[in-house]
Amino acid sequence: MAIHHAVSAEVIDVRPLGERLKETRTHTLIKTDTLEVIRIVLPGGKLLPPHRVDGEITVQCLEGCIVFDADGTEHRLSQGQMLYLAGGATHALRGIEDASVLVTILLK
Amino acid sequence: MAIHHAVSAEVIDVRPLGERLKETRTHTLIKTDTLEVIRIVLPGGKLLPPHRVDGEITVQCLEGCIVFDADGTEHRLSQGQMLYLAGGATHALRGIEDASVLVTILLK
Repeated sequence: MAIHHAVSAEVIDVRPLGERLKETRTHTLIKTDTLEVIRIVLPGGKLLPPHRVDGEITVQCLEGCIVFDADGTEHRLSQGQMLYLAGGATHALRGIEDASVLVTILLK
Repeated sequence: MAIHHAVSAEVIDVRPLGERLKETRTHTLIKTDTLEVIRIVLPGGKLLPPHRVDGEITVQCLEGCIVFDADGTEHRLSQGQMLYLAGGATHALRGIEDASVLVTILLK
């Protein structure tokens, strides 16, 4: 089945997953030539290893709690907290409590 | 006083404002050469008149409820709902219940 990406002005649900978190996989909500928006599902204890992207990103914690490592410095993000990261910075994410995060990537 | 914009990896609070909504003004959280993130405060009944920007945007309702008009079609956004809008589309926002929304703009 083809993965559905939202079209312009289509309403997308980003409320906390709650009980459904454990059965939900990371998925791309929006993808265009210049923009990608992904909901990353990160159960407690799971690691998204260090990586980098060329463009700027924003990372918003939708539920739970993660540690966001930016160039070796750790930042704790709980529900309702976000940050932006300059392009090219190495970063990693680790679930502290079952979490989902909204990542917006400016593609270059 | 200079307006503070977040630096890379600075943690930003985007939890619902609740009781503080009525005394909070729309403000820019992040501003770089390619990205702008604004928290728009829109009390019930208030209108942000039709306008357009060149780049793509995402609009996420952080609390309350708004009607988002995209090229003449209305979309209702409640807490935890979002959409993206292609660049150049005329849009307007109207508060239905006291609302704040997170708007991410790709600058071109």
